[in-house]
Amino acid sequence: MLKIGILGYGNLGRGVECAVKNSPDMELAAVFTRRDPSSVKLLTAGVPVVKIEDAANWKDKIDVMILCGGSATDLPKQTPEFAKLFNVVDSFDTHAKIPQHFANVDAAAKAAGKIAMISVGWDPGLFSLNRVFATSFLSDGKTYTFWGKGVSQGHSDAVRRIAGVKNAKQYTIPVESALETVRSGSNPELSTRQKHTREVFVVLEAGADAASVEKQIKTMPNYFDEYDTTVHFIDEEEFAKNHSGMAHGGFVIRSGKTGWDGEYKNIIEYSLKLDSNPAFTSSVLVAYARAMMRMYHAGVRGCTTVLDVPPAYLSTKSAEELRKELL
Amino acid sequence: MLKIGILGYGNLGRGVECAVKNSPDMELAAVFTRRDPSSVKLLTAGVPVVKIEDAANWKDKIDVMILCGGSATDLPKQTPEFAKLFNVVDSFDTHAKIPQHFANVDAAAKAAGKIAMISVGWDPGLFSLNRVFATSFLSDGKTYTFWGKGVSQGHSDAVRRIAGVKNAKQYTIPVESALETVRSGSNPELSTRQKHTREVFVVLEAGADAASVEKQIKTMPNYFDEYDTTVHFIDEEEFAKNHSGMAHGGFVIRSGKTGWDGEYKNIIEYSLKLDSNPAFTSSVLVAYARAMMRMYHAGVRGCTTVLDVPPAYLSTKSAEELRKELL
Repeated sequence: MLKIGILGYGNLGRGVECAVKNSPDMELAAVFTRRDPSSVKLLTAGVPVVKIEDAANWKDKIDVMILCGGSATDLPKQTPEFAKLFNVVDSFDTHAKIPQHFANVDAAAKAAGKIAMISVGWDPGLFSLNRVFATSFLSDGKTYTFWGKGVSQGHSDAVRRIAGVKNAKQYTIPVESALETVRSGSNPELSTRQKHTREVFVVLEAGADAASVEKQIKTMPNYFDEYDTTVHFIDEEEFAKNHSGMAHGGFVIRSGKTGWDGEYKNIIEYSLKLDSNPAFTSSVLVAYARAMMRMYHAGVRGCTTVLDVPPAYLSTKSAEELRKELL
Repeated sequence: MLKIGILGYGNLGRGVECAVKNSPDMELAAVFTRRDPSSVKLLTAGVPVVKIEDAANWKDKIDVMILCGGSATDLPKQTPEFAKLFNVVDSFDTHAKIPQHFANVDAAAKAAGKIAMISVGWDPGLFSLNRVFATSFLSDGKTYTFWGKGVSQGHSDAVRRIAGVKNAKQYTIPVESALETVRSGSNPELSTRQKHTREVFVVLEAGADAASVEKQIKTMPNYFDEYDTTVHFIDEEEFAKNHSGMAHGGFVIRSGKTGWDGEYKNIIEYSLKLDSNPAFTSSVLVAYARAMMRMYHAGVRGCTTVLDVPPAYLSTKSAEELRKELL
């Protein structure tokens, strides 16, 4: 049984707890938190909640520590730090900072004789895998990534920071006609605005000016100004009833040519439709924790990513079973 | 530059020739054939065509031999035989016989200090990969594979063997309503008949009895009797104009649950739409030949499959470039 530690008990940490429960080869050893441990109630009976400062005492009692903090401030610090003590997996998702994060984690893990895997999840993660696969099979082509329909936590947070906004949820929506054009194999050039629209549901504070809030949302640099955005003002009851979910998903599509002179068109499409983004991300994290430990036992040390993992390592089935049943 | 040999110059061999041309890190060293070499005209200028009996003389001049014969009789014999001389890749696609073929090739390759990879292509191959990935991420769920719309060579051949049939093409077509039911997440039990229909275009010999041919097709055991089959009789002109292509494709869909009590539904879908089945299969073979040689240089010997390959090995880009650009 692989002994799993969870660091950070938010939506993702709870998702990992569920995924570990559903993995016959794993058990949850402990959950580590910055909060007062007595205030954290786990779903699993009998598992200790430990102050993060005491993690070093668990060095020999955990096979993989799954880091469930945020990419903005937690993981850049935590993953290299905890890679000195544990084999670690994280879901670091700031694409532009992956090379630096990789270097930091690689140095820490190698010095400690540990293995680490960063940026595990679905994007980065499964979508990255599919970008690499599809580009390798169709070298002459173009790859498109669409996200949604789904909740963007970052965009929802940005709206909530506007004065007068009590609560907000932002949905990223792929433009159906853009998807269809890509699937036709015509390899269009698509602007940011042509690929996705944004839809925002806002609960206002009493007395707030709707017109002003709407304008601030639609003109917000980076987050909204390059998109066609629709803003809906709703009451708290409707918000709680219809907008409390964390569904997400998306598409990676590569359109490319084969043949002597590129005479044949091909479309490779990968898509996800997820009722809960953190629950699915957690399932992916746990499968890669399993795979990472197989790499560890095969002698791999330092930082890795999903691109380094032989797919058979992800499964609870043996190589023989996989060849017989799924190949 | 990786030196590639092609054994067997049919549709797949020619496809590999095209894929090698489009790979900046490879060159075609020679094509091996059972035919009279002087009768084989390659697309590539200046590459020798060699009698298959003389292959052993090329032992040290080829990095990877790509075996482009058929799965029924060629590959079960050729792959173990040539694994004694070369690093080999094949596209063996008789699912039920994979374990035996793997064992034969593994023994031959290990004894000779070579590496081999079998069952490379899209099914088995990329579809197998996606079955393993999706099953690993959604352990509580159900996987569905649909093929088509596309040409089945085996079914076309079977129809051509009927007396009175001059030419024939068989299309396998996934049932749209079955696809939609699977995508809804309801995990239906689908019979063979409910998943696919078959459509056959037949050119009759002069004087042949259409009704009798149609009955023989529709009742043919294993090939057609479990399906709803439509038979069209057409003339040679229409056949040549509309039914000379080799398009194919399909879908792997897994529908599964996450959460503490399986409260969240998820759909993972992978699909291919290919103008030419052999041209795409060839592109996959060539990418896996590249990956296999990286495994060889890392010390791997014996038989492998796509399930053993770290995805980064497939790409012409370095690990650093992949992390920066595609992760």
